[in-house]
Amino acid sequence: MIPKEHPRYRSLVVRERLAEFAREGVLSLEGLTAHGRGEAFDYLLGESTSESARLAERTAAAMLLLARKPVISVNGNTAALAADQIAPLQQASGALVEVNLFHRTEERIEKITRLLEANGVSVLSGSRERLLPLPHGRAWCLRDGIFSADLVLVPLEDGDRCAALRQMGKDVVTVDLNPLSRTARNATLTVVDELTRALPEITRSCPEIGKEEALKLVADLDNDYFLRAAMDVMKERLAHALD
Amino acid sequence: MIPKEHPRYRSLVVRERLAEFAREGVLSLEGLTAHGRGEAFDYLLGESTSESARLAERTAAAMLLLARKPVISVNGNTAALAADQIAPLQQASGALVEVNLFHRTEERIEKITRLLEANGVSVLSGSRERLLPLPHGRAWCLRDGIFSADLVLVPLEDGDRCAALRQMGKDVVTVDLNPLSRTARNATLTVVDELTRALPEITRSCPEIGKEEALKLVADLDNDYFLRAAMDVMKERLAHALD
Repeated sequence: MIPKEHPRYRSLVVRERLAEFAREGVLSLEGLTAHGRGEAFDYLLGESTSESARLAERTAAAMLLLARKPVISVNGNTAALAADQIAPLQQASGALVEVNLFHRTEERIEKITRLLEANGVSVLSGSRERLLPLPHGRAWCLRDGIFSADLVLVPLEDGDRCAALRQMGKDVVTVDLNPLSRTARNATLTVVDELTRALPEITRSCPEIGKEEALKLVADLDNDYFLRAAMDVMKERLAHALD
Repeated sequence: MIPKEHPRYRSLVVRERLAEFAREGVLSLEGLTAHGRGEAFDYLLGESTSESARLAERTAAAMLLLARKPVISVNGNTAALAADQIAPLQQASGALVEVNLFHRTEERIEKITRLLEANGVSVLSGSRERLLPLPHGRAWCLRDGIFSADLVLVPLEDGDRCAALRQMGKDVVTVDLNPLSRTARNATLTVVDELTRALPEITRSCPEIGKEEALKLVADLDNDYFLRAAMDVMKERLAHALD
């Protein structure tokens, strides 16, 4: 349907694939809009991984390796974009995987779980309880998963929920293309990169990092630096877009 | 469903409304993603109309008033966001209104036409022909509408289609939050503003502008200036976001 010669071919094809996932009920319709928001920031990043993002990805790997109980929190957007990249990351990092949705229905949790399992992910199951300090229906998670994790890798997360996890004393690693978002500013570490570029890079880094390097990466972690570096790339692109 | 205390309440509510239009088939699922893209740029604009955008809106009004046969091209996103703002603009400017879709089906054309008519718009009807110089299924329009227009106001348009209209010698006025998009760069005049702020501003300007002012606004039109001014606002916001 999308002609190959269209200059935005790749982006339009991803949009079509996500629309298909939305029709199947994996992705919420609101998730489609959220994806577009990310697209815009990726456009400003030049749709490539910056040097600072690469360092953030290596630091994310270090944090996963050093954590006592790391959990990867997967929502509809993450599943739709990167279902096939979760299993390798789970194996490389030893993290648990929990499905956790903003627009939450039992049916969507079920569908996403099946999609992940079909892609080789071992998904944590159990009955969810209202365990996150949130004033509304976003508080549900698994007691043996996110609730008891010391570190949560939660890509593409809502700002409220990121703040709630931090409030509970957890380290939060997020992947978020918007360096201005509340999620990006509240997280312990923000990887400002497109999800399907970021996850494989984190996975690749895991077996390369020894304990000493991991400790050094975490000691040097400065999330403000990562956000500012991403904004600098975007400012640069805005400054020269018409040249 | 969305808690009122959520800091992104307004944006989440618009997303929900658009999701509803998508369920009804007015908006394509890909249109939801495109909306998110716009949202991100509006975020960088501080979600308000800049001084340069206001001048662009006044210039848009001038161009509509001076045109021999202006046509407003309405797609799913425009209808979903601003169905109630089209009739006042049509009355103030004397333009024809044609429904023209990127993800085109007869059913969606029908639904959008009914939505516009329910909002008091007089919608051009007829049988569409392949009249735009495009290599694929995006070429359809009305002979008595866009094809014979000298000026097309086409908000939220695809870059290929904007270029095709320019190639046909038409003036193109667009409303596009992304100042880097091909649409924004190819249009005769780009209003870098959110659609529901831009349209009423254009409408308000129409009765205020005399022939002399209209001619001067058009003579002074420098689209590069409008794009650079918008980028400057965004750069400024990126520069001070973490202060």
